[in-house]
Amino acid sequence: MKLNLMYSFLNTDLQLIEKELEQAIQSDKQLLQEASLHLLQAGGKRIRPIFVLLAAKFGDYNVNKIKHVAVALELIHMASLVHDDVIDDAELRRGKPTIKAKWDNKIAMYTGDYIFARAIELMTKIEHPDAHRILSNTLVELTKGEIEQIKDKFDFDQDLRTYLRRIKRKTAILIAASCQLGSIASGASKEVSHSLYLFGYYVGMSFQITDDILDFTATEEQLGKPAGSDLLQGNITLPVLYAMKDTNFKDKVLNVNENTHRDELQELIQYIKQSESIDRSIALSDHYLNKAFKELEKLPNNVAKRTLNNIAKFIGKRKY
Amino acid sequence: MKLNLMYSFLNTDLQLIEKELEQAIQSDKQLLQEASLHLLQAGGKRIRPIFVLLAAKFGDYNVNKIKHVAVALELIHMASLVHDDVIDDAELRRGKPTIKAKWDNKIAMYTGDYIFARAIELMTKIEHPDAHRILSNTLVELTKGEIEQIKDKFDFDQDLRTYLRRIKRKTAILIAASCQLGSIASGASKEVSHSLYLFGYYVGMSFQITDDILDFTATEEQLGKPAGSDLLQGNITLPVLYAMKDTNFKDKVLNVNENTHRDELQELIQYIKQSESIDRSIALSDHYLNKAFKELEKLPNNVAKRTLNNIAKFIGKRKY
Repeated sequence: MKLNLMYSFLNTDLQLIEKELEQAIQSDKQLLQEASLHLLQAGGKRIRPIFVLLAAKFGDYNVNKIKHVAVALELIHMASLVHDDVIDDAELRRGKPTIKAKWDNKIAMYTGDYIFARAIELMTKIEHPDAHRILSNTLVELTKGEIEQIKDKFDFDQDLRTYLRRIKRKTAILIAASCQLGSIASGASKEVSHSLYLFGYYVGMSFQITDDILDFTATEEQLGKPAGSDLLQGNITLPVLYAMKDTNFKDKVLNVNENTHRDELQELIQYIKQSESIDRSIALSDHYLNKAFKELEKLPNNVAKRTLNNIAKFIGKRKY
Repeated sequence: MKLNLMYSFLNTDLQLIEKELEQAIQSDKQLLQEASLHLLQAGGKRIRPIFVLLAAKFGDYNVNKIKHVAVALELIHMASLVHDDVIDDAELRRGKPTIKAKWDNKIAMYTGDYIFARAIELMTKIEHPDAHRILSNTLVELTKGEIEQIKDKFDFDQDLRTYLRRIKRKTAILIAASCQLGSIASGASKEVSHSLYLFGYYVGMSFQITDDILDFTATEEQLGKPAGSDLLQGNITLPVLYAMKDTNFKDKVLNVNENTHRDELQELIQYIKQSESIDRSIALSDHYLNKAFKELEKLPNNVAKRTLNNIAKFIGKRKY
């Protein structure tokens, strides 16, 4: 089953959110408008808005209220991608030039700041002190995660704990917050919100681990950027951490830097693909997914629960 | 009268705010902590917290509540300075190396993001929907101002209106918001908050114009960076706009870029200093100050009003 067929009952609401996203980044500054629109039109799975809407189905669902949360969370995700691409010197995202590549680092920095400010502005339409506290704590963790990503770059001595903490901050927390804020803003109970938070957290961990696996196993066409980009940018991900148990591989990978030749990188990718590290990574991803499924069981039965279950299954099996 | 003697009755509260600022930027990430502390310890006039506290005196003053607003606004100011220094390729601020100079642009970007996120987090301690809306609108304007600053760099054809709109967004709005949020958070009336907003806006305009004058008239020692830095970074300020009425000067200034030789820059600075452009700039600064004084007259008499009056007078006469 295709991802977008799982939540076709949300289509009208998701179209509304797409429109609101476009409106949110409108600016009288042509440069800002162009750069933000470029990013928006590059697409993305809109997984955070989808989680917000589904989580809101556990409370008093009102799309005209919940849309602000959905749009704000997607904007925060977008803003963090723009700043990430500066850190990673990334040229391509989803097959299109990044803002830093099409314009420059400075424009990227301020486009990120602008989108971020717009997100905060939208969230003020939600009058729920808890929601604001959760969102702002999430933002602090997110920035810490990004600083960790800078600090840990090309650090081949980091351990599994460092990796897991980093992807928690970088990815899982924002997905967890999407589920939590969707339910809180629609007045769901504390127990339901907490289970949805945990569900989002576990799914987010699995999602990022899968992303990190696909960076090696998917094709350039599927990725929208060359395979092995993470490694070339110095981001040491789970498959690399596992593969480094082999000292031969470790000796070779230690020499990787931004200028490593394509052939040399290909050799490392091949090693990772034929080693056990991909299977071990999938196992850890599955471990988090199982935890996610267990959290879901605690929730009342409804179409949103079934959909969250299907999306989680999809995330565990996705090929790109 | 020295600036800090004007508000000595706030000393205990300002010391508290200084402590809270240090606490706010504490992080388990050593790099973030060092970079943020470096910025904090480089000093600054803390004019935004001072305005927050004084404005709060028009309502039900409670330092343990209002401190969050004061700290949040100073943090937002700090975060915007860090990102500004990236845009301006600035090496020095207040006589100390900037974060981008001591570390690099990427660290500066994320240190700014982190301080910014911390500010938003602190503001959630204020349960006042209006305050959040005002702050977030301010942030959107602030980022627009910063994008304008990039776009307008080395654009010698910009007019006075472009300059005024830019300094409004870059400086005046945040000072206006400091006055407004201080009074709103302490429950002052709408009329009082509005007058304080306008007071802050006018003072902010005068403050930035004075800053732009001092960039030419003050010494390197007073500025903590070389004179003429704005011009060298391509920021076309009021004295330059006025001086360009002389076509001889305009012909010369058109050639300025980041690599312009010190002697050539000195010659331009000398021209500006001996021309009428400084006096005309002072006149426009005074024009805004007079408007600020007029707004103050509408406010009830108290020690805060007298202090705001004195600070505004000081800003009109300050030499650095």
